[in-house]
Amino acid sequence: MAGFNGKILALSGGVGGAKLLHGLAEELPPEQLTAVVNTADDFDFWDLRICPDLDSNMYALAALNDQDRGWGMEDETWRTMVAMRRLGGETWFQMGDQDLATHLYRSMELRAGKSLTEVTAYMCQHLGVEHRLLPMCEEPVATEVLTDRGTMEFQEYFVRERCQPSVQSLRFRGIEQASLNPAIADYLADSELAAVVICPSNPFLSVDPILSVPGFREALSDSGVPVVAVAPIVAGNAVKGPLGKMMAELDMPASASQVVRYYQQRHGDLIDAYLLDQQDSGLAEDIIQMGVAVTEADTMMTDMAAKRRVATAVLELVEQLTSR
Amino acid sequence: MAGFNGKILALSGGVGGAKLLHGLAEELPPEQLTAVVNTADDFDFWDLRICPDLDSNMYALAALNDQDRGWGMEDETWRTMVAMRRLGGETWFQMGDQDLATHLYRSMELRAGKSLTEVTAYMCQHLGVEHRLLPMCEEPVATEVLTDRGTMEFQEYFVRERCQPSVQSLRFRGIEQASLNPAIADYLADSELAAVVICPSNPFLSVDPILSVPGFREALSDSGVPVVAVAPIVAGNAVKGPLGKMMAELDMPASASQVVRYYQQRHGDLIDAYLLDQQDSGLAEDIIQMGVAVTEADTMMTDMAAKRRVATAVLELVEQLTSR
Repeated sequence: MAGFNGKILALSGGVGGAKLLHGLAEELPPEQLTAVVNTADDFDFWDLRICPDLDSNMYALAALNDQDRGWGMEDETWRTMVAMRRLGGETWFQMGDQDLATHLYRSMELRAGKSLTEVTAYMCQHLGVEHRLLPMCEEPVATEVLTDRGTMEFQEYFVRERCQPSVQSLRFRGIEQASLNPAIADYLADSELAAVVICPSNPFLSVDPILSVPGFREALSDSGVPVVAVAPIVAGNAVKGPLGKMMAELDMPASASQVVRYYQQRHGDLIDAYLLDQQDSGLAEDIIQMGVAVTEADTMMTDMAAKRRVATAVLELVEQLTSR
Repeated sequence: MAGFNGKILALSGGVGGAKLLHGLAEELPPEQLTAVVNTADDFDFWDLRICPDLDSNMYALAALNDQDRGWGMEDETWRTMVAMRRLGGETWFQMGDQDLATHLYRSMELRAGKSLTEVTAYMCQHLGVEHRLLPMCEEPVATEVLTDRGTMEFQEYFVRERCQPSVQSLRFRGIEQASLNPAIADYLADSELAAVVICPSNPFLSVDPILSVPGFREALSDSGVPVVAVAPIVAGNAVKGPLGKMMAELDMPASASQVVRYYQQRHGDLIDAYLLDQQDSGLAEDIIQMGVAVTEADTMMTDMAAKRRVATAVLELVEQLTSR
């Protein structure tokens, strides 16, 4: 967006977050936008380190993501997976042939002692992604989903069980031992930082882990910048993923205002402003009552123009907040 | 071959050996044929354990090998490799998308503590390969090629350098610490064993490693069965691979009789009979002079019928030797 000064730190999960991030990346040069990406979905499959959210954001910014399927790379094939099935190996997690190179390369480099931040930067560079993607921490963190069918690893719940079990609670194993990525701490301490943007990602699965990394909340608070969130729920439905179903299972109304309420209950006075979808005008008053500024817009990001439009609305909201 | 009793142990390297093995497998039921496969070509690439000779034999017996290209799997694609190149990873070793599943599965299972023999058996079972393929040993052995351009790992010489450097000598790193696969020792001690067949594989690269595994020569000698070799050189040329070039570099005439002479010089009184190509009739006398029985046949294995024909010639030669 022409005329927007200052830097933005975007918090992003998977595909939903990546859409806004892509919009922001079109509006802001690399020096004005860095993303913190959730890594609590990361797991090992075929002895490879899979980082679904880092990949979703990387592929989106590289314009290599599949738009129809909604995950993975475009123009993908599944030859290795079919061959693995023939060999008697596990194939419940779908891995495309192109996507597989990412997991192979990352796993090699991590085993060789590189950090996840370094490997991500190297791959981004080769894919032409200029905006920085930072994993929330270097240490492995793993989301455990406590359900009515027992405790399971996140990808087992998400992919293998197709989100069918009813969620009772979540736990981020290893989060206490993690430390905030120093590059994030540096960015949060940058005097040119204008705002932190919480992308329309799942609060429980994608944003909570980032906010729970020891040191993040303190660094955010010390930065003194406003936090702007984009509603991940529109007209009572999650734009993507299991958020709506999870909220119901966790005894919450699946609404955009409940997301704000949840953030306040769990993380205190976190959000300063909220970009609400225009279909949810009726919820604005409730959110304002919580002490959160609200702007309304069409937040559905169905194409690149829409992503840029939502990104612009976010940046305008940041400008309003910072010029007060 | 109808009427052939007794068991055969075949020593096989890569593609050339796999052709005869496939012919033998068509002639003999699984309980009468086991193969020992060279593993000194094995190496790690992309942090995966690659066993080129085990795979060549497995794919051949599964009728999944590519006949035109001469290595790897038929109907192969290269999507992961192209994606790896885009990411900035190494791609000098070619790995097809289907083939990759083999390396991924094997690597996982080895890391989980399975033996190479167990993993190979599991994959063979799933690919419908009923004849047993036994790695010569479980321990990693690595061929080092001493060349005019320095010492290099075998696959670097073979694939990356395309056999261009001039070979001065070979070394099998780790062979002293290896021990003969117990399943091979058992098979060699089987009273029904009729003969050991050395497939038309490279003597230096494929057969020497097997013969060099501590315990193999003793077990072979104790078995008392005849050893029949099939000429890997026809009319002065290697049927496949760098054998002819290597022999010249090692100051040997590239001839079928020189192969016998080399085996005798290096391994003593190893070979009892030799299947010579009919184009090399002129060499028969020389070989007989070395105390080795000779039979001539068309040994070019251009199709399945030819593979069976050569296999039958081998088995007839075994019958002649054992009925003496």
